[in-house]
Amino acid sequence: MDVIRMGLWLSSQLQGLSVTVKLADPGKHVVDGQELHVPPIILGRIGDDPRKNTVLVYGHYDVQPAEKSDGWDTEPFQLVVDEKTERMFGRGSTDDKGPIVGWLNVLEAHKSLGLELPVNMRFCFEGMEESDSEGLETLIHSEASRGEDGWFHGVDCVCISDNYWLNTRTPCLTYGLRGIAYFKATVSGPARDLHSGGFGRVVHEPMTDLIYLMGRLVTPKGQYPRSWGRGDGRCRRCRGTVCHFEHAVWSSLGARSMVELTPRESYREIYEKLDYTIQDVEDAVGAPITLSDDKATVLMGRMRMPSLSLHGIEGAYSGPGGKTVIPATVSGKFSLRIVPPQTPESIEALVVPYLEQEFAKLGSKNRLKVEKMGGGMPWIADYKHWNYEAARRATEAVYKRSPDLTREGGSIPVTLTFAESLGVNVLLLPMGRGDDGAQ
Amino acid sequence: MDVIRMGLWLSSQLQGLSVTVKLADPGKHVVDGQELHVPPIILGRIGDDPRKNTVLVYGHYDVQPAEKSDGWDTEPFQLVVDEKTERMFGRGSTDDKGPIVGWLNVLEAHKSLGLELPVNMRFCFEGMEESDSEGLETLIHSEASRGEDGWFHGVDCVCISDNYWLNTRTPCLTYGLRGIAYFKATVSGPARDLHSGGFGRVVHEPMTDLIYLMGRLVTPKGQYPRSWGRGDGRCRRCRGTVCHFEHAVWSSLGARSMVELTPRESYREIYEKLDYTIQDVEDAVGAPITLSDDKATVLMGRMRMPSLSLHGIEGAYSGPGGKTVIPATVSGKFSLRIVPPQTPESIEALVVPYLEQEFAKLGSKNRLKVEKMGGGMPWIADYKHWNYEAARRATEAVYKRSPDLTREGGSIPVTLTFAESLGVNVLLLPMGRGDDGAQ
Repeated sequence: MDVIRMGLWLSSQLQGLSVTVKLADPGKHVVDGQELHVPPIILGRIGDDPRKNTVLVYGHYDVQPAEKSDGWDTEPFQLVVDEKTERMFGRGSTDDKGPIVGWLNVLEAHKSLGLELPVNMRFCFEGMEESDSEGLETLIHSEASRGEDGWFHGVDCVCISDNYWLNTRTPCLTYGLRGIAYFKATVSGPARDLHSGGFGRVVHEPMTDLIYLMGRLVTPKGQYPRSWGRGDGRCRRCRGTVCHFEHAVWSSLGARSMVELTPRESYREIYEKLDYTIQDVEDAVGAPITLSDDKATVLMGRMRMPSLSLHGIEGAYSGPGGKTVIPATVSGKFSLRIVPPQTPESIEALVVPYLEQEFAKLGSKNRLKVEKMGGGMPWIADYKHWNYEAARRATEAVYKRSPDLTREGGSIPVTLTFAESLGVNVLLLPMGRGDDGAQ
Repeated sequence: MDVIRMGLWLSSQLQGLSVTVKLADPGKHVVDGQELHVPPIILGRIGDDPRKNTVLVYGHYDVQPAEKSDGWDTEPFQLVVDEKTERMFGRGSTDDKGPIVGWLNVLEAHKSLGLELPVNMRFCFEGMEESDSEGLETLIHSEASRGEDGWFHGVDCVCISDNYWLNTRTPCLTYGLRGIAYFKATVSGPARDLHSGGFGRVVHEPMTDLIYLMGRLVTPKGQYPRSWGRGDGRCRRCRGTVCHFEHAVWSSLGARSMVELTPRESYREIYEKLDYTIQDVEDAVGAPITLSDDKATVLMGRMRMPSLSLHGIEGAYSGPGGKTVIPATVSGKFSLRIVPPQTPESIEALVVPYLEQEFAKLGSKNRLKVEKMGGGMPWIADYKHWNYEAARRATEAVYKRSPDLTREGGSIPVTLTFAESLGVNVLLLPMGRGDDGAQ
């Protein structure tokens, strides 16, 4: 299997650069009932000087599948360098083989120039990132629980290069990720699908109920409707009575409105200063559909405000053409991207009763069931930490520009795993540009 | 092909009963690029006495596919008679081979008893009903346009036995069918599907817009929302200003509300008298989810009020499990069952601007396109016609019960084709019971 070969190659490269390597087995991977060999997690260590800080670098050497017929101009698994633009094309060149090779280059440069590494380094390179990082979390927890005998003992900070710049111009350091809470709201009525001719305006239709409920979750402006959630007396804006859910988020952050944020990133200034334009979003989505024409509002919408997206409906008619069905059971799928201090659990405690209350108001004889399908905590790091300071200086040395400080709207679960298991500062140091076409 | 064999058998049976038969070719049928032979439309005639009325009988000799593994207790294509209940089991026993055989029995009985038929008879039996009656409408129009040379010349009324009783107890005559107007509302935004992590609360999401619009089409009680449609001065209830769309239907029927209906079927009495219970609906749908606990309201909802059903969404995530997608283009499918004087065109003229207005209010930067995907007129016949009177007497003679007079919520397109092409009274005379399990 090519990924395993890739792992062994990487392992030998590290050893050639004087890194002590241990291959960890992430366990068996079962696909369609078949047990597959899984590429190893490569653990590396170099340097044990107690006077130096110890940096753990994470990366993944597996990639998304690619075929030339997917629209590639070149063979995806053959690295092609465009001499004119100096860009490299190939699957994994940015996600995430390229950044790993970047770290190999760092080791190589020090070695060939006879320079001492300024820090002790630890490496954790996995080959299952594109398959939910199977086995990695278990390994990290287990190593962390082994105390002084654990592989990660003594690690002072973590550096992950697995995300991207906001654009093609300015490097960035990323100190926050939104979390997620994914839900399924199922409305069931008849014992089987019905024909609308015989039963339209005869029965409570599950789709009508569900569409109504989904329409009560988010406003067309992307905000939570005013009726979400209840105040607990802490909301400054509505003085502790019924609380707009959005206020609850703001006020729990110590702010009175969206323009007044946490002490550290108090004002919209931080977002106004980022090298980012509305045009960047329009280029990325291929249409002029930003919720606001104000760049800071858009960036805050992505980085530090929660969002709610309606993904689809299971059980309804989804084919082309028309079908006059009254579907018997329909499940709406939606998820919230969440920000501190929200947690999947705090959101679940709001979503479930809210939908149940709204459903009760309908007087429908159908049945509603709301389930949380999954969740992940949001993450935020202290960007005044020396880890970030070192990254800022390194970026300035390499690119001759100060990096933007950003947060990402999505999640990179391993970030949270390292932050929680090791209890140290984690830095996201993207090496790829916004137009690298990572998938 | 078995259907063609069935057609030839039927043709020879008719000829054996002294019916003159002509086989009409409905044209070629193309499935997956292959031209298939199509079962013939069997046109029959018996009797030409100018002093008698001429009755045209329609039926179809094709059936839905069936396999024992679909849940049949007996071989679907082998007629099995349960001695105890006297019920016959087999595909087509009720839809619609059984009723055709019923007519053969009528001819046979007259012939063997030496009785003169009281009417001239014409037959039109097709073998493509379950495949959209391909070719039939063209044939009917073409025969009708041939005037005195046309096969249907001189027909005084039509009788169709292709629907069912309301229950297992009381026969019925059916004098009305709802029409249909089927729509697709498409909201497009980004050039491609987006990830909710990077773009949630950044862009106008097509699903959010579409769900909002779909939620504005019908209330959870199955009615049109108050904002539908505009008054044209004829609505008595809101005195010609903004008109609840429901009023528009009622007032155009000369009624002030749902309880006050057309002159002929003026009051809810007609529905209250029908042999029908809420339990009948609950048995049919397998759950206690009727919109009302009042039988007349439920029956009016099915028979004489328009309805709107939301069928599903094309382009959104519809699989099991979760996916954090912001779909780029989503199409909501919905249809209205319509009643006189509504037409697919009059509904289109309301639906399209209504959705466009509602969409404009959102201030979304996405694009909306509303299309009518199909439509069929509602149909209603004069049930005081001698055609109905004759059917009532025949029913009383056979079943010893007066038939209920009903309307159906769905459509049987050939009904309208005959009514419009021949300009004569059409009667639906169901021979099957409500629990026959027709598909």
